[in-house]
Amino acid sequence: MPSNQFSTSLITDLYQLTMAAGYFTHNTNNQASFELFVRRVPKNRNYLVTAGLAECLEYITTLKFSESDIDYLQSLTVFKNVGSEFFDYLHNFRFSGDVWAMPEGTLVFGNEPILRVTAPLIEAQLLETYLLSTINFQTLIATKAARIVRAACQDGKKRSVLEFGTRRAHGAVAGTYAARAAYLSGFAGTSNLAAGQKFQVPVYGTAAHAWTLAFNDELTSFKKFYEVFPDTSTLLIDTYDTLKGAENACKLGAGIKGVRIDSGNLAEQSHKVREILDKAGLNQTKIVVSGDLNEFSITELVKSGAPIDTFGVGTELATSRDLPALGGVYKLVERLKDDGSCQFTAKFSAEKTTYPGAKQVFRHYGSNGEYLSDTIGLANESIPTNSRPLLVPVIINGEITSSGKISLENSRKYVVSELSNLPKECHSLTEQILYPVSISTALNDLLEHVKANLNNR
Amino acid sequence: MPSNQFSTSLITDLYQLTMAAGYFTHNTNNQASFELFVRRVPKNRNYLVTAGLAECLEYITTLKFSESDIDYLQSLTVFKNVGSEFFDYLHNFRFSGDVWAMPEGTLVFGNEPILRVTAPLIEAQLLETYLLSTINFQTLIATKAARIVRAACQDGKKRSVLEFGTRRAHGAVAGTYAARAAYLSGFAGTSNLAAGQKFQVPVYGTAAHAWTLAFNDELTSFKKFYEVFPDTSTLLIDTYDTLKGAENACKLGAGIKGVRIDSGNLAEQSHKVREILDKAGLNQTKIVVSGDLNEFSITELVKSGAPIDTFGVGTELATSRDLPALGGVYKLVERLKDDGSCQFTAKFSAEKTTYPGAKQVFRHYGSNGEYLSDTIGLANESIPTNSRPLLVPVIINGEITSSGKISLENSRKYVVSELSNLPKECHSLTEQILYPVSISTALNDLLEHVKANLNNR
Repeated sequence: MPSNQFSTSLITDLYQLTMAAGYFTHNTNNQASFELFVRRVPKNRNYLVTAGLAECLEYITTLKFSESDIDYLQSLTVFKNVGSEFFDYLHNFRFSGDVWAMPEGTLVFGNEPILRVTAPLIEAQLLETYLLSTINFQTLIATKAARIVRAACQDGKKRSVLEFGTRRAHGAVAGTYAARAAYLSGFAGTSNLAAGQKFQVPVYGTAAHAWTLAFNDELTSFKKFYEVFPDTSTLLIDTYDTLKGAENACKLGAGIKGVRIDSGNLAEQSHKVREILDKAGLNQTKIVVSGDLNEFSITELVKSGAPIDTFGVGTELATSRDLPALGGVYKLVERLKDDGSCQFTAKFSAEKTTYPGAKQVFRHYGSNGEYLSDTIGLANESIPTNSRPLLVPVIINGEITSSGKISLENSRKYVVSELSNLPKECHSLTEQILYPVSISTALNDLLEHVKANLNNR
Repeated sequence: MPSNQFSTSLITDLYQLTMAAGYFTHNTNNQASFELFVRRVPKNRNYLVTAGLAECLEYITTLKFSESDIDYLQSLTVFKNVGSEFFDYLHNFRFSGDVWAMPEGTLVFGNEPILRVTAPLIEAQLLETYLLSTINFQTLIATKAARIVRAACQDGKKRSVLEFGTRRAHGAVAGTYAARAAYLSGFAGTSNLAAGQKFQVPVYGTAAHAWTLAFNDELTSFKKFYEVFPDTSTLLIDTYDTLKGAENACKLGAGIKGVRIDSGNLAEQSHKVREILDKAGLNQTKIVVSGDLNEFSITELVKSGAPIDTFGVGTELATSRDLPALGGVYKLVERLKDDGSCQFTAKFSAEKTTYPGAKQVFRHYGSNGEYLSDTIGLANESIPTNSRPLLVPVIINGEITSSGKISLENSRKYVVSELSNLPKECHSLTEQILYPVSISTALNDLLEHVKANLNNR
């Protein structure tokens, strides 16, 4: 079995299965709604770009438990008192509920549900771990990517950003999803071929130092590369001496698509390399730079006027290095009781208060479509004027809807429009700006009602 | 196709395949050696615990290219001038070379090769991206885990640490490997069932707030849980009020295995909860705490004398939050030339110098087995007295050796011994201590020789 292939169904926390067994045993399986959200936008971000929904939908609609999964569970001491009916239930498991979610690429803020699952309690509970790890991770990367793209084009000039980070990602699979999330948020492409194959992300590549070292001298290595890739060669020129490398590249002529600089002072080197290339008539040859770049170092390079065409970004993007974890949670918000009434649930423990009831997020816009503020309300509230409800049905009765089948290319366009409608000040890479989010009167009333009920008990 | 299943062979950078095509076209495929290493131990670590070798060996020995992989590659413009012989070569690809590596769990320091691949150039080159992402990530997590375990037991008292981080990991697959790496470095187990199923890591679980909220009141929810899991119940007691939660737990009697506190002041709460439990005769009931714990907060809790039996650690472990990326690299160190002589390669660019030649690491120990220092030498140097060579053959002629088949349980024991032999001061969680690593005379001579050759050209 290839090493990255697991039983998807068991990539979850044991307690999801013990709780499921408990609910099953006690016949506690009425319809329930869970919501996935981030309590607050982290300090070093002003917005989050949601990502991961496509993988979540695939997971939810294909989740099942194989014989060997069930054998493994039954081998665990903790399940020794659980009757075989529960394992029969797992054997026949198929998600039958509904999911509403923000489309991938939606900008989201604190406490706003990104996704809501409504299903028999056990089905909804079982999804928690996988949905969280998927949305938490891909949202982190898509958000970081949007900041990096912004930095690269902040003066209005178009520059490409490429994703080169798989080798530093949290494993090869994480690297592949990072490449997809980066493309979603405006990267031009990736070096990761699996992301190209599976998600049709455009792939790009240059060459490594090993290529140059594998021949007797740099010029020979460049010629050999150019022979095989006559009009697509981007040469790595810093193995020995960047400026001599640029001169060697010039000896091959104007067919050289690009040169890459991976070390040293990139601002200074790019100026000198540009001069060498132009003097030799290689005006069309692009300069690609790489080496631990992020939105801050790219800002400096752009401000310095460095003649850079393309930024290759790896580690900082693929690990979201300055914010490597997002604290998304998945909380029960309401459930049907046996008497048919609805119990709304909330948590009031220190700093971890949650809002009860199935919710919707209304985004209010101005006359030019620009975003003014959001209101978190109840799912059944009517839509305020000049507002758009952000959660849409993506799974109904276990089947993915057309809203759940948006192509990556379309999601990518959506991100562009989302970002262009965001208040300008929220694009600051350094200042913390709070986008206004409020709670509707109806939701606030429900919260007070739940609190009062709890205190009366 | 389940969402976490990819063509493993294409989780790599495009340039590995273009370079491979270039080497193939130019018949440049003599034997070469690449080494994987970290240039320096990051500032906030004093050692690294190597991990990921098992996955690397599985990857190397199963790597092949399917028809659809090859179709995808041939669909890319960049390969338009590459002859079909190269794709036939890929179709028949199987790794035929040798790999030497440090066993998983070995402590490693800056510039020390963790792994060396010796194979025809193309075979060795193609492995780069996957090996790097695997070793970089799992080593990060194993290292963080060792620090956390150290913090939990720093007063010599045994306390368990459990891994709860999948929901915050960089995707579900990363979470599963993080669980394995944590167990390798001394965690008692994980909540991740896939890690239990695939790697036989012991699994543990408690309950979520949703369980408590799914019943009319907390006591009912506890009773219902206890009925199904009579001697394995760990109850989450902080949904409404931690101390009332503890009192409710006591009403179930001494069979309750544990209670978990997930919010508030853990030092204060654990004291009060212990008192409540003891007063009710639940002296055997363990206290588990969780909530963004790391080696520093655990140190504080242990120093404060908090009566905590088990720490549940999630986000901070699974993302190695304070050090989310490791900069491991994979460099060509030597290759056979067509005339049968060996070309030793090194890179001398700014801050990125590498050492030439296939190397070995010798760890020198004192009379009680304690580690004194390391020397990085050449692979063919004789072993100094009172020294152990750290790299062992794990693949020979494409087949995994017995040294490459060490069980996770044995690797786990090895980590304990590695850590106990480390100089005491290197265990500091806050002070930077440099373990002494030197370069052998032979390696230094070779470096000077390569440098002189380069300058003479």
